[in-house]
Amino acid sequence: MKIFRTFEFTGVESLFVDEVSNPGPLARGQVRVAMRAASVNYRDLLAVTGQLGKFPEGLIPCSDGAGEIIEMAPDVGSLDARVKLGDKVALTYNPHWIGGPWRPELGAKARGGPLPGTMQREMVVHHSELVKLPSHLSFVEGACLPVAAVTAWHALCGSAALLPGTTVLVQGGGGVATFVVQLAKLFGARVIAMSSTDERCRRLKKLGADGVINYSLHTNWQEEVKRLTGGVGVDLTVELGGAKTLDKALASTRLGGRLALVGLITGWPNQTESLFSSSVDITPIRVGSRDDFEALNRALEFHRVVPVIDSTFAFDELPKALEYLKTGRQFGKIAIEF
Amino acid sequence: MKIFRTFEFTGVESLFVDEVSNPGPLARGQVRVAMRAASVNYRDLLAVTGQLGKFPEGLIPCSDGAGEIIEMAPDVGSLDARVKLGDKVALTYNPHWIGGPWRPELGAKARGGPLPGTMQREMVVHHSELVKLPSHLSFVEGACLPVAAVTAWHALCGSAALLPGTTVLVQGGGGVATFVVQLAKLFGARVIAMSSTDERCRRLKKLGADGVINYSLHTNWQEEVKRLTGGVGVDLTVELGGAKTLDKALASTRLGGRLALVGLITGWPNQTESLFSSSVDITPIRVGSRDDFEALNRALEFHRVVPVIDSTFAFDELPKALEYLKTGRQFGKIAIEF
Amino acid sequence: MKIFRTFEFTGVESLFVDEVSNPGPLARGQVRVAMRAASVNYRDLLAVTGQLGKFPEGLIPCSDGAGEIIEMAPDVGSLDARVKLGDKVALTYNPHWIGGPWRPELGAKARGGPLPGTMQREMVVHHSELVKLPSHLSFVEGACLPVAAVTAWHALCGSAALLPGTTVLVQGGGGVATFVVQLAKLFGARVIAMSSTDERCRRLKKLGADGVINYSLHTNWQEEVKRLTGGVGVDLTVELGGAKTLDKALASTRLGGRLALVGLITGWPNQTESLFSSSVDITPIRVGSRDDFEALNRALEFHRVVPVIDSTFAFDELPKALEYLKTGRQFGKIAIEF
Amino acid sequence: MKIFRTFEFTGVESLFVDEVSNPGPLARGQVRVAMRAASVNYRDLLAVTGQLGKFPEGLIPCSDGAGEIIEMAPDVGSLDARVKLGDKVALTYNPHWIGGPWRPELGAKARGGPLPGTMQREMVVHHSELVKLPSHLSFVEGACLPVAAVTAWHALCGSAALLPGTTVLVQGGGGVATFVVQLAKLFGARVIAMSSTDERCRRLKKLGADGVINYSLHTNWQEEVKRLTGGVGVDLTVELGGAKTLDKALASTRLGGRLALVGLITGWPNQTESLFSSSVDITPIRVGSRDDFEALNRALEFHRVVPVIDSTFAFDELPKALEYLKTGRQFGKIAIEF
Repeated sequence: MKIFRTFEFTGVESLFVDEVSNPGPLARGQVRVAMRAASVNYRDLLAVTGQLGKFPEGLIPCSDGAGEIIEMAPDVGSLDARVKLGDKVALTYNPHWIGGPWRPELGAKARGGPLPGTMQREMVVHHSELVKLPSHLSFVEGACLPVAAVTAWHALCGSAALLPGTTVLVQGGGGVATFVVQLAKLFGARVIAMSSTDERCRRLKKLGADGVINYSLHTNWQEEVKRLTGGVGVDLTVELGGAKTLDKALASTRLGGRLALVGLITGWPNQTESLFSSSVDITPIRVGSRDDFEALNRALEFHRVVPVIDSTFAFDELPKALEYLKTGRQFGKIAIEF
Repeated sequence: MKIFRTFEFTGVESLFVDEVSNPGPLARGQVRVAMRAASVNYRDLLAVTGQLGKFPEGLIPCSDGAGEIIEMAPDVGSLDARVKLGDKVALTYNPHWIGGPWRPELGAKARGGPLPGTMQREMVVHHSELVKLPSHLSFVEGACLPVAAVTAWHALCGSAALLPGTTVLVQGGGGVATFVVQLAKLFGARVIAMSSTDERCRRLKKLGADGVINYSLHTNWQEEVKRLTGGVGVDLTVELGGAKTLDKALASTRLGGRLALVGLITGWPNQTESLFSSSVDITPIRVGSRDDFEALNRALEFHRVVPVIDSTFAFDELPKALEYLKTGRQFGKIAIEF
Repeated sequence: MKIFRTFEFTGVESLFVDEVSNPGPLARGQVRVAMRAASVNYRDLLAVTGQLGKFPEGLIPCSDGAGEIIEMAPDVGSLDARVKLGDKVALTYNPHWIGGPWRPELGAKARGGPLPGTMQREMVVHHSELVKLPSHLSFVEGACLPVAAVTAWHALCGSAALLPGTTVLVQGGGGVATFVVQLAKLFGARVIAMSSTDERCRRLKKLGADGVINYSLHTNWQEEVKRLTGGVGVDLTVELGGAKTLDKALASTRLGGRLALVGLITGWPNQTESLFSSSVDITPIRVGSRDDFEALNRALEFHRVVPVIDSTFAFDELPKALEYLKTGRQFGKIAIEF
Repeated sequence: MKIFRTFEFTGVESLFVDEVSNPGPLARGQVRVAMRAASVNYRDLLAVTGQLGKFPEGLIPCSDGAGEIIEMAPDVGSLDARVKLGDKVALTYNPHWIGGPWRPELGAKARGGPLPGTMQREMVVHHSELVKLPSHLSFVEGACLPVAAVTAWHALCGSAALLPGTTVLVQGGGGVATFVVQLAKLFGARVIAMSSTDERCRRLKKLGADGVINYSLHTNWQEEVKRLTGGVGVDLTVELGGAKTLDKALASTRLGGRLALVGLITGWPNQTESLFSSSVDITPIRVGSRDDFEALNRALEFHRVVPVIDSTFAFDELPKALEYLKTGRQFGKIAIEF
């Protein structure tokens, strides 16, 4: 079967298609999944350039994947009513984080590094590493969920209930940001979204955002956020930027509010006075547990939410998909259809 | 000024209009409210028939009320930014329960017995006993909130977050039930509502219910609930019945689910095997705190939710309003406009 | 190797020792445990008399067990840092409940019925089904934890934090009750314990109970509980009785308090007026998750808590151990040393 | 009666004793307290030097105070069962924060600036601003609680339960730090405390600390913390330092752990890479609510905990007490006996 892998970890160009034999017979508790789709995340770029530490040689990239169960070990049916033969499933990002808060014992055993990623035509995994997809989603749509949608869900309701009428701020139009807009609306929240062009702002509004800010026009966008919230600031900020945005994100959040710290694409901030004067709870988000994923799916299923997919590439086009991701020009997720 | 009161506690017929002088000058911390509306609750019927224990002679009835702030003691402005002169406000049900879980020290100091109720043209209260109404609501609409809407809110999210995609069951079409339907939808929940006629079921559906059951036709309605939930049962039942409904309500709730026990209009159940075999958390609901009320108002304000009012009576018609309440034929709240 | 089993499910006398071959080679993810000890629970008596439903023929009894890891599949070390070769471990009761609240999808897949129990000299399980024992405990002591100690822990802190100074009531001197006394003291709680003789009360006091009640002398023990709590009642009752105790247990709990419903040894109560007038949260307890077990172990480890063991039987004496359990005369746990 | 006040806000030397008339007659809801003791906090130094913003002219300093109820308005008894004539009481720090999480509407209305402080011989307050002291504490001991002990309690259990066996790190030997040591032990936690001399470390150990670190000897004390926790780090750090300690505090906390950010005595940190790589929840602590205070008191009462008081000054010696506080040489609280 075909897989993607890298030995050199020198970036996207070091990825190549390899031919390996299919996984062997199932052990007890295991399930065989015919992989049908994947999607890419910023983390995949860091992984293949060695920026996340030393990973095993010949690493198979990508954390996100979905497929169909084509074989189950005989004991699985009696062990786990969550999945059955023929189900459309996605793989969890951290296969050992089933529920409850993350703890160090769970390790940083993420799919796509150090664990083998999803760019393989067939995978054999333990039944506990799978979640059933919402019935209205295609494989490609389902493959967009494991990292970005679970992160968005966890950021919204992981450490405190999100009540209707709460105000949420989110930046950009990438995978996590579009999920935050879609999911926060399910909770009855008011969403303020920001992006760099009027066109992207329009799309965020169409997706459900109640207020939008073009941060190219409003470089001091925290003032705009304050204005839109009667001078108070938002209750919850999902922070996806880093050095360039954190101070303003804190200034946009109300006293006693919360900032879910997802990403640091632009590096570390230089000064942090605002951090301490802001009286804001700061919660780092590490994707989420399988329980989070299944709660997310119940919400997606009932509300028939469909992920925003910017573009879909073929299996062999993974490097192209990753190069496109690097540009940051996408709106929503970039998927791979096998 | 005019007030309603009872000395005999022999029921609605013992209520009469009395003329008393207006409340005197404000003490520090106090606020004068020109009362504009009230609404009635089943509890008011029990109170005026002495079924809630011995209350002070000459009790002024009714827990729910709304009005306008027409005077504030000079110190209030500097103490409390929540309310100001001219605000439309509602009174809290238990004036001492500000936030956090209820504790015995807070007592059962409810307005409308043992504390004086809202059927008076002017009231002087401590500023901490008021909440500002959502801006889109009239006094009559605002007067429907303190008991029924706060109870519904508290039942939905008081002891655990209500996530989108969760399934909620509620019975009947009274004040609490209609608020449960409206509010649960704000949380993104799936609502199954039940009533006694097709006409009432239609109205519940129009109000937002995703599924409705006519329990006159489906006397074993728990089976219908199971059918609508793929055999699993609902995640949360807001139980408003009592002896006649509790067993079926428990059977309608999924293993490990929750039942919010609001009312017992039909008395105590005779057998309770289901209670123990159901593996359902049972949470009694005692209206809610001022913090609950203010969180509710933020949700109502953003979503522009308008309470369902069945009918509105004049101040002097309180006995008529209570007699109508007794029939149980109303859909939504019964209000009093001063 | 030797195992115990039953085909007839007619009770303790239908159990017999069988000789079967040892489990075969390990599959990926699996671990081989040389079993060293078990312990018995009231549930085991119900299981072998068919009172918990129809279980597979030839069921191996008992939920509780501990042993030593003597072999691991090659991949386990890289998957799970929680366990390693040579570790003293216990098995979890519900192998699929890892963390978070219990949900129906997890099923009632308990060890000792329907899943094979712990009365076997060697077991092969998935690595995720094990927890490492606190270092100061023997195998026999460790084998007392999976059901009784996890239940006690979950009852104490599963649905709300247990704060220092909180008052906890617990009945009897069985395995769960003695763990409740020991664990509640770790939380800084005040414990009131009840038993049937002065001698047992003395032992509960020695174990840490702050107050004890001999319920043979105080048949209306709820009055005694009220007296010991200044008329208020306890904050939390861990209810282990059933028909004979529930009404009094509710009357012993403060308004707004909580009752953790663990067992119903004496059957269903006949009348339940107190249930509804008590304004007490009722939470059924289904043992607990692996996360609960590991949190418990961190507490036991730090505080060097040693379970109370009434008596220890040899492997072949399982029927004798179960007969003794039936008498209800034990104080603490009844263990089996292999 | 005698009060302390400042008009110039130029520091301790601008404080002077003034003679004013006693507060007038009680309004409804009010209570008269004969003040018997106060205590000083670092905040008082900032307040009298104008570093907390512009406060009303003639501000009476100090947030902490305790006294005896010598008069109650006639209505208070029927309103609030929490306090009665003759009770020993303390005043809450933020009189409007009764329960639940802090929200901006509650304002920063702290006693000792902008609200009048406790350095007055008699105070008239609303009944809701008082908490009854644990019965075993003197007025001087009770006056040490409102800021430092409530902060310590809130830092320990405000945003998540503190389970037995959890490891807590705290720095220094001031009022908050000594309360953290004493209170964390009530929760069954393991406490690691740090101080600048062996003598102070000995006192922390005597107070209950399980491990101590002399940070003058171990300047890279985060390594020592890691060593004492098997390389993992602590679950919870109560951070009282600022620029000089934050990076090391984060490095001392386990991945996924929590840092309660109480104070920033040494200013803002310069670099914050550790902040983002640490994956630690950061929760700013704003003292706590009245509900927190009352929960604290139930714990203190049951465990007969007595605050650590370094030294006690007379009413007129307030400036001396504040000068001593500035040195940072105290161990525990500095109190004022009226």
